[in-house]
Amino acid sequence: MAGTGVFAEIFDGEMCKYYADGEWKKSSSGKSVPIINPTSRKTQYKVQACTQEEVNKVMDTAKSAQKSWAKTPLWKRAELLHKAAALLKEHKAPIAECLVKEIAKPAKDSVTEVVRSGDLISYCAEEGVRILGEGKFLVSDSFPGNERTKYCLTSKIPLGVVLAIPPFNYPVNLAVSKIAPALIAGNSLVLKPPTQGAVSCLHMVYCFHLAGFPKGLISCVTGKGSEIGDFLTMHPGVNCISFTGGDTGISISKKAGMIPLQMELGGKDACIVLEDADLDLVASNIIKGGFSYSGQRCTAVKVVLVMESVADALVEKVKAKVAKLTVGPPENNCDITPVVTESSANYIEGLVKDAKEKGATFCQEYRREGNLIWPLLLDNVRPDMRIAWEEPFGPVLPVIRINSVEEGIHHCNASNFGLQGCVFTKDVNKAILISDAMETGTVQINSAPARGPDHFPFQGIKDSGIGSQGITNSINMMTKVKTTVINLPTPSYTMG
Amino acid sequence: MAGTGVFAEIFDGEMCKYYADGEWKKSSSGKSVPIINPTSRKTQYKVQACTQEEVNKVMDTAKSAQKSWAKTPLWKRAELLHKAAALLKEHKAPIAECLVKEIAKPAKDSVTEVVRSGDLISYCAEEGVRILGEGKFLVSDSFPGNERTKYCLTSKIPLGVVLAIPPFNYPVNLAVSKIAPALIAGNSLVLKPPTQGAVSCLHMVYCFHLAGFPKGLISCVTGKGSEIGDFLTMHPGVNCISFTGGDTGISISKKAGMIPLQMELGGKDACIVLEDADLDLVASNIIKGGFSYSGQRCTAVKVVLVMESVADALVEKVKAKVAKLTVGPPENNCDITPVVTESSANYIEGLVKDAKEKGATFCQEYRREGNLIWPLLLDNVRPDMRIAWEEPFGPVLPVIRINSVEEGIHHCNASNFGLQGCVFTKDVNKAILISDAMETGTVQINSAPARGPDHFPFQGIKDSGIGSQGITNSINMMTKVKTTVINLPTPSYTMG
Amino acid sequence: MAGTGVFAEIFDGEMCKYYADGEWKKSSSGKSVPIINPTSRKTQYKVQACTQEEVNKVMDTAKSAQKSWAKTPLWKRAELLHKAAALLKEHKAPIAECLVKEIAKPAKDSVTEVVRSGDLISYCAEEGVRILGEGKFLVSDSFPGNERTKYCLTSKIPLGVVLAIPPFNYPVNLAVSKIAPALIAGNSLVLKPPTQGAVSCLHMVYCFHLAGFPKGLISCVTGKGSEIGDFLTMHPGVNCISFTGGDTGISISKKAGMIPLQMELGGKDACIVLEDADLDLVASNIIKGGFSYSGQRCTAVKVVLVMESVADALVEKVKAKVAKLTVGPPENNCDITPVVTESSANYIEGLVKDAKEKGATFCQEYRREGNLIWPLLLDNVRPDMRIAWEEPFGPVLPVIRINSVEEGIHHCNASNFGLQGCVFTKDVNKAILISDAMETGTVQINSAPARGPDHFPFQGIKDSGIGSQGITNSINMMTKVKTTVINLPTPSYTMG
Amino acid sequence: MAGTGVFAEIFDGEMCKYYADGEWKKSSSGKSVPIINPTSRKTQYKVQACTQEEVNKVMDTAKSAQKSWAKTPLWKRAELLHKAAALLKEHKAPIAECLVKEIAKPAKDSVTEVVRSGDLISYCAEEGVRILGEGKFLVSDSFPGNERTKYCLTSKIPLGVVLAIPPFNYPVNLAVSKIAPALIAGNSLVLKPPTQGAVSCLHMVYCFHLAGFPKGLISCVTGKGSEIGDFLTMHPGVNCISFTGGDTGISISKKAGMIPLQMELGGKDACIVLEDADLDLVASNIIKGGFSYSGQRCTAVKVVLVMESVADALVEKVKAKVAKLTVGPPENNCDITPVVTESSANYIEGLVKDAKEKGATFCQEYRREGNLIWPLLLDNVRPDMRIAWEEPFGPVLPVIRINSVEEGIHHCNASNFGLQGCVFTKDVNKAILISDAMETGTVQINSAPARGPDHFPFQGIKDSGIGSQGITNSINMMTKVKTTVINLPTPSYTMG
Repeated sequence: MAGTGVFAEIFDGEMCKYYADGEWKKSSSGKSVPIINPTSRKTQYKVQACTQEEVNKVMDTAKSAQKSWAKTPLWKRAELLHKAAALLKEHKAPIAECLVKEIAKPAKDSVTEVVRSGDLISYCAEEGVRILGEGKFLVSDSFPGNERTKYCLTSKIPLGVVLAIPPFNYPVNLAVSKIAPALIAGNSLVLKPPTQGAVSCLHMVYCFHLAGFPKGLISCVTGKGSEIGDFLTMHPGVNCISFTGGDTGISISKKAGMIPLQMELGGKDACIVLEDADLDLVASNIIKGGFSYSGQRCTAVKVVLVMESVADALVEKVKAKVAKLTVGPPENNCDITPVVTESSANYIEGLVKDAKEKGATFCQEYRREGNLIWPLLLDNVRPDMRIAWEEPFGPVLPVIRINSVEEGIHHCNASNFGLQGCVFTKDVNKAILISDAMETGTVQINSAPARGPDHFPFQGIKDSGIGSQGITNSINMMTKVKTTVINLPTPSYTMG
Repeated sequence: MAGTGVFAEIFDGEMCKYYADGEWKKSSSGKSVPIINPTSRKTQYKVQACTQEEVNKVMDTAKSAQKSWAKTPLWKRAELLHKAAALLKEHKAPIAECLVKEIAKPAKDSVTEVVRSGDLISYCAEEGVRILGEGKFLVSDSFPGNERTKYCLTSKIPLGVVLAIPPFNYPVNLAVSKIAPALIAGNSLVLKPPTQGAVSCLHMVYCFHLAGFPKGLISCVTGKGSEIGDFLTMHPGVNCISFTGGDTGISISKKAGMIPLQMELGGKDACIVLEDADLDLVASNIIKGGFSYSGQRCTAVKVVLVMESVADALVEKVKAKVAKLTVGPPENNCDITPVVTESSANYIEGLVKDAKEKGATFCQEYRREGNLIWPLLLDNVRPDMRIAWEEPFGPVLPVIRINSVEEGIHHCNASNFGLQGCVFTKDVNKAILISDAMETGTVQINSAPARGPDHFPFQGIKDSGIGSQGITNSINMMTKVKTTVINLPTPSYTMG
Repeated sequence: MAGTGVFAEIFDGEMCKYYADGEWKKSSSGKSVPIINPTSRKTQYKVQACTQEEVNKVMDTAKSAQKSWAKTPLWKRAELLHKAAALLKEHKAPIAECLVKEIAKPAKDSVTEVVRSGDLISYCAEEGVRILGEGKFLVSDSFPGNERTKYCLTSKIPLGVVLAIPPFNYPVNLAVSKIAPALIAGNSLVLKPPTQGAVSCLHMVYCFHLAGFPKGLISCVTGKGSEIGDFLTMHPGVNCISFTGGDTGISISKKAGMIPLQMELGGKDACIVLEDADLDLVASNIIKGGFSYSGQRCTAVKVVLVMESVADALVEKVKAKVAKLTVGPPENNCDITPVVTESSANYIEGLVKDAKEKGATFCQEYRREGNLIWPLLLDNVRPDMRIAWEEPFGPVLPVIRINSVEEGIHHCNASNFGLQGCVFTKDVNKAILISDAMETGTVQINSAPARGPDHFPFQGIKDSGIGSQGITNSINMMTKVKTTVINLPTPSYTMG
Repeated sequence: MAGTGVFAEIFDGEMCKYYADGEWKKSSSGKSVPIINPTSRKTQYKVQACTQEEVNKVMDTAKSAQKSWAKTPLWKRAELLHKAAALLKEHKAPIAECLVKEIAKPAKDSVTEVVRSGDLISYCAEEGVRILGEGKFLVSDSFPGNERTKYCLTSKIPLGVVLAIPPFNYPVNLAVSKIAPALIAGNSLVLKPPTQGAVSCLHMVYCFHLAGFPKGLISCVTGKGSEIGDFLTMHPGVNCISFTGGDTGISISKKAGMIPLQMELGGKDACIVLEDADLDLVASNIIKGGFSYSGQRCTAVKVVLVMESVADALVEKVKAKVAKLTVGPPENNCDITPVVTESSANYIEGLVKDAKEKGATFCQEYRREGNLIWPLLLDNVRPDMRIAWEEPFGPVLPVIRINSVEEGIHHCNASNFGLQGCVFTKDVNKAILISDAMETGTVQINSAPARGPDHFPFQGIKDSGIGSQGITNSINMMTKVKTTVINLPTPSYTMG
C-alpha cells in the first residue's frame, strides 16, 4: 500500500516529505498543501509547502551533484537507471494506488502507467549510452579553401540542472520521461510535481532513491505555485525546463531567457473521417481516443470532422459504444471516472452549456455528479461553439460534419493548437496528402492520436509546444554541443 | 559530332584510342575490336584491343595516382567533378550520337542519359564532400567496465583502385555512377566499358580528361574479354569491383576473394495488379516500364501478375497503348528500336517461340526484322513457359493471370532474381503489406520499377546482386573504415 | 562602386531604400537613419526608418510567401541559392566597398568576407538538400510490448518566418549564415541589419533579389531600434529568431516565449599557454586572434593566460609582432583600423584607464585618435581589473600570468561567457584534458579561436548564447520535426 | 564443472553432441574428432564428426526458422538475447573451465572472456533494436528534375542464414560477436566452432538453448574440415559468412561468390616508439600487448619499431618485465601457458631458429617444453628475418631499431597485413600524423592494439580482412537494404 513498506520513509504521519540532498525532509515552513481525492472530494494526502530557501539549497546541491555525475561512465549511469526501472516495476502496486487516489485514474491503467514508465527508463538508458557516447569527427577540407589541418570532435554534453514539471494526468510517466533522459545525459534533476499526482511522484522518486543515485542528483520539491512556482522556473540555477501541462507553459516560456525549453501544452486533436473509412475502426478509435481516462489526455481525440455522407452511420456506431462505457469510481476500473478537480468539471460544464445554447445535438443526456461527468457525444457542432476550439479535458466529444476534405483540413489548421491529428481513409494517396496538409506535430493514419511508442518523436507546434520529445529527441534536447578542434601544423589525410 | 571538335583526339583515323596515364593511346597489340551498329548491323567504330601488359601499366599508374589523390582536399575533388559534369552537359550532343549508333538508343533518350549523368556527378560530388568529411567520435565508457580513457575517431577512407564495368544499356550513366563515387571518395578508377557503348564511354571519359584530373587517376581500357576480362577482374591491383551487367557478374564474384563487390546483375521485376488498381495508371506504367528502350533495362517490368477479374480490362488498355508505339531506327526517336545484338534478338525469339508452343495468347503478331523486334504482349502466360522466369531484355512482356494476391507474391518470390517489383492498389494497407512481402531490393507502390532518382538506394537481392547503390550508398561502398584511438592516461569527460 | 551599376536601384538619391515584397521601397515615415563612417566620422549613408505598419506588411507577405516556398522542390531552392552565391561573388567589389565605409573593415578582408559568404551559401544549399530530403523511418516494435503495426515517418519541416539580426562586424557573412539555412529549409526570411552594415546588407540582399527568389520571401527592413526593434522581435508572425550580437540578445530571449532561438552574444575567449608550447606559433595566433579587424570579433582572443615561466618570452614575441602592425584607414588595408563607433572607442578607453589605475603593465603606450586606437598589449593583468572579464571589442589584449594549468582553467570557467577558448601545448594528453575541462562551446588546440570553416559546429554556452550554429546545425535549428504514423491492421515485417 | 549440471545434456559419455533443430544430437557418422589439451597433450574431449547430410538438414531448418524469426518483434529478440547473456554469466565457471582445458587460456582470463561475452550480447541486443528499428525516409525532390512525388522508405533487413566460424583463441567471445549481431538482425545462425574451443562453444550455445530461442534458429555443427569445411562455406543455403582466423579465410573468400563476407585474418601489428615516448608506459604495453595469452591474439603487438636512441633503454625495461612473467599451466593462472598445438609450437620455433641464424640478439635464452615456450624478446631484428614479417602467434616478440619515423611507417606499411598498429609519443602532432600515415584498420595512440571496447569499429585491411566489425558495424554487415517507394499522383510537401 502507498506509504507503507519501503515507502514508509516518505511519510511523517499523514504528511508526505519532500526529497532533497538524498534525504526525505520536512519543510521549515511548517505548512502543507492538501491533495483532494477527485472521487471522494476529500483531502487524501498532504505534501510539504517548501520555501524559496529550500529551493535554493536544492539548486545548489543539484549543481554540485551534476559536476561529478557528468564524470560518471555512461554504462554506470545506465546501470543505475536500469535498477530504478526494476524497482519501479517491482513496486507498481502502491504507486498505482496513489494514482487512483490522487487523479482518479482507473486502477488497471494506473498499473500500466507505472510499468510503461519502467520500460521507458530502461529504453532511455540504453539510448543515452549511444547518443552521449557518439559524436562527430569532422575535417576542415570539406569547405572550399581549406586543407585538412583541422580535426573537429563534437560531443553532446549535459546542460546542467534540468527542471522537470509534469502534469497531473500522467504524473509518473511524464515525470520519468523527463527524469530518465536528463539523468542519462549527465544532468541533475529537480522535479516539481503537479499538486494532484505529487504523492505518486514522490513514490516514484523513492525508487530512484533506492536505486542508489548520488545525493542531490535528483530532488523533488512540493509546494504552492504562488510561493515557489515562478521562483523555480526563473531560478538562475536552472539550465533547462521540461514542462508538460497547460497555459502556464506559455508564461514560463516568456520568462525563460536563453534556457532550452521542452514544452508540451495540450492540443485539440482532430479526427478527420473520409467516406471510404472503415467506420468500425473509426468508432473504436474515437472511443479509445476520446474517452480513455475520461478524455483527460493531451492526445485525446478532441474533435471529430466527419464527411456528411457517413456522419449518421458513424455517430450511430459511436453512440452504441458510448452506451457501453462504464461510469464510476477508478477503484472499480470504470471507463469513465471523476475528472481531476471541481474547477475542471465546472469548465467542462461551461462548454457543454454553450453547445446546448447554440444548438448542438446531444447524443446522450448531460449528466454530472460531483466531479463525475457521464460520457457525452455532441453532434452537429458548429465553429461558433466554444467546444469546436477549446479542449474540455473531459469525456465530452464534439462532432463537426464536413462537406469536403479541405473543410476538415481547414478546421484542423485554424486551431491555435497543433499537437496531433488523425485521418481515417483506406486510400494511400489521400492518407498521405491529407497527413502532409495537416499542420500538427504528428498525424496518425487510421488510428487515434497517441504519444507512444515512447521512442517515436512526439511534438506539438504552434501553441502546443516547442521542442520534440520521445526518448531519443528528449535526450538530445537535454544536451548541448561542444567541439574540440585539433589544429595540425601540416595537412594530414587518413590513409589505410 | 562524335569524334570531332574537342573529341578529335580520341580518334586515330577510324580507330578509337584508349586512355591511360592521362594520354590517348594506341595499343601495342595493333589489334582492334569492332563495334556493330545494331540498326545497320555494320561496323560503326573500332576500339583498341589492349594487352595484359598495358593493363598492368594502367594498374600501376592507378595505384600511384590514387596515393596523391587521397591527399587532395575534398572540395578540390568536388570542384573537378563539377567541372567534368559541366563539360559532359556541354558536349551532350556528340556523346548522345555515339549512344544512338552503338546501342540504338532513341536520340532523345540518349541526350537525357548524358544530362542525367552530369547531374549525378554533381550530386555525387557534394554528397561525397559530406560522407568523406564526417566520421564518428566514440568514447570508451559506453561499454560496461570502461572508463572514458579512449577517444575513437572513425574515418571513411578510400579503397584504392576501383574497377568499373558498366553494361551496354546505359554505358554513360552507369559508368559515371561508378566513376563519380569512386573519385570523390579518393579512389582511382579503371574503366572497362562494354563493347557496345565503348565509344560513348571514351567520349564521356574525355570530359573528365578535359576537366583536368591528375594523370593516371582515371583510365579506360578496351579490348577482348578473352584477353583482358579475367585478367582485369582478378588483377591483384584491384581493390574494388563495381559491375553492372548479366551472368558474368556471378563468375567475377567467385574469383574476387576479399575484394569489396558492388554488383547489379539484372532482374525479373514483377508488376502485381490488384482489383482496386487505377488501370489507366497501370497501363501507362506497363508501357513505360516494359517497353522503354525496347525493354532493355534492368528495372523493366518483366512480368505482369494481374488479378483475373481485371485482367481483360487491363490487357485491353495495354494493347491499345502498344498499338501506338512507334517502331524503327533510334535516329527517328522511335519508341521501339533494334535490340543491341543479333544474339540478343535470337534469344528473345527463343523465348517467344517457347511461349507460342506452350499456348500463350499473342496480343500482337510476332514480327522481327534484323535486330528490330516489334512490341509484343503475351497474355495467359503460365509458369511452365520460359518467359515466366527468364528476362528477355527486349520488347516482349508476359502477363500471368492470378487468382489471389498470395499467388502473385509467390511468383515474385520464386524467382532467382530480386531487383525491384511493383504493386498497384489504392489500398494503403495492402500496398504496404504486399510491398513488405515481396522479396526484392525495392518495391514501387503505384509506379513502374525505376533506378532513380539517383540518390535513392538501389539494390538487388539473390542473383540480382550484392551491395546497395544509389549515390550515397555507392560512395559508402567505395570506402572502408579506419579508426584512430587516442588513449588517455586518466579518464576525461568533456565539460562545457 | 556601391550603389551603382546593378545596385543603382537600391538608392534614391543619397538614401537607401528598404526591401519588401520583392521591391525596393521608401518608408512612408519619410525619416531616415544616418550611417556614420567610423574613419571619417561623417554620415556616409542614410537608410529608411521603417514604420511598424511597414513591418506588419513585411510579416504578412513573409508568411504567405513561405507557404508556397515550402512546396518548392529542394533542388530548385538550391538552384536559386547557387545563383545568389554566384551573383554575390561577381559583385564582391561594391559590396566590399560598403563594408570599408560602414564598418572600417580593411579592404582586403572586406572582399574576403563577401567571397566566403558566397561559398557559405552554396555549401548550405547542398547541405540543406540533404538534411531536408532525409527523415527517419521508425517502426513500433523496437519498444517493449509493441508489434510492428506502426510505421513512423519523420520529416524536418520549415519553422515559418525567420527573423535574422546580424551584428555590425560581419554584416554580410553573418547575415547570409542565417539567410541561407533559413531559405533552403523552406522558411521565409526577414532581415534586420545592424545600423553600421545596413548598406552592405542591402547590397547583399540585392543579389538575392537578382537571383529571382519569389516576392516577399526575403525582406530587409531598416530603422530605429526604439521604433521597430522590440516590435520585430516580439512580432507574433515571427517563428524563429537568429541573432548575433551583444547584450540585447538576452533581453530578446526574455520576451521570445515559445519561439526557437539561435543566439550568439559574444565571448571572452581565453588563450591558455603551457610551458611546452611553441611560442612562435602562440605569438602569431595571438596577433591573428587578438588584433584581426582590430579585435572586433566574437571569437577574438580576449585574454591570454600564460604560464609564468614562459610569460616573459611570449610577451616579448608578441610585442615584436605588435610593433609591426600597421595602423590607419581601412582603405589602405591597415591591420588596425578605427573601431566602429565613438562610444565603442570610449568604452575601450574606459577599460584601459581602469587597467592603468590598477597597475597593469603597458607594453605599448596607449594612443587614440578619433575612433582609431593603437594596438595595446597589457601585461600582468589581474582579476580585479575590468579587462580581465569584459570584452573590449577593440585592439587591446590583456595578459594574465598563471602559475598552474588549473589557475588558467579556473579563470576561463569563471567567466560569464563560454564561446571559444584555446590551449597551446605540444602534449597530446594535456591538450585533450584541458580542452575537456574548459567550459566553452569550442576549444581550439594549438590555434586561435575561429568560427570557421563554416560547416563546423559553432556555439556559445552560458551568456554566450543558445543553440548551435555552423551550416549543418543552423539548418537543423531552422526546422522542426513532423511525424506521420501509418497504422496497419496487422503486423508487417519487411522481407527481402 | 564442464558437462555437468545443466550442461549434462551436451555429453553422451565422453562424447560431446552437436546442436541442431533445438536438440542435442549424435552424428549418424558414428565418428568423432578428438580435442587435445595443449598442456597435457592428451585427448581432453571428443566432438561429433557431422556428415554433409546433417549439414544439409541444419541449413534447411536454419532457413525456415529464419523466416519466422524475421517476423519477431525487435524487443522480443532482444529479450531472448538478454536472457542468453545472463545465463552465460551465470554459468561462467564451467565454460571457462573448457577454455582452460581446450586452449590453455589462463583460468582468470577464461572467466573474463565469458563475462565480457555476456556484456557483448546485451549491448548488441540493444544496439540492434535501434539499428533495425530505424531506416531512412527519403523524398524525390532532392535530385534535380524531380518533384516530391516519391517517398522512399529504407529498411535494414536480415540477410538470411549466417555461417559463423570463430577461431580457437577466443572461441566463446568471437563466436558470440557473430551470433548476437546475426540474431538481433533477424538472421538464423549456423556455428562451426574451431576444433580447439569446440566444447567451450557447445557450452556457450547451450546457454542460448536454455534461453529459449526458436528451434533451428541456432545450430552448432562440429566435424572434420575435410568433410564439412568447404561443404559449409560453399553451401548454397548460406547468405553470409563471418570468419575469424588465419589463411583459410582467403580461400573461403575466393569461393564465396556474391555472399557478404566479414573476415578477420590476423595481423602483424607494429608498435612504433618515438624518442619522446613514456618508456615505462611503452614497456607495460609491450608486455600486455605482446605476451598476453602467450601472444596468441590477432591484435598482439607483433613487432616493435623503436627509435635507436631510446632502444637500449626500452629493451632493458621490457627485459625486466619479461623476467617477471610466470610460465606454466593455465590452471595456475600463469602469464605464459602452452601454445595451442604442437604444430603451432613448431612453427614458432622455426621463426626463432631463423632469427638466430640471421643474427638477432636474444634477450632471453630460448626455451621450450612440449607446447610451452618461454617468453622471448628478440632485439636487433632485421627485415631479412622471417619474424620481421610473419606472425608467430606465440610469446616471441621482435624488436627492430629504426633511425627515423619514416622507416617505422614504411616497415608497417610494407606488411601484407593491416589490422592494427600503435604509436607511442607525447607529441599531439606526431601522434596524429603518424596514425594517419599507418596503413592499418586501427591505430592506437599510446596504447597497445586491442579489439575492444566492443562497440568500437574493428577492421583489418589488405590481407587482414574485409568488412568492419565491432558491435554496430557487425550488425550492419549482417543486414541488407530494402526500399519501398510510395509514388503519389501529385507532389506533396509535409507542412506543419
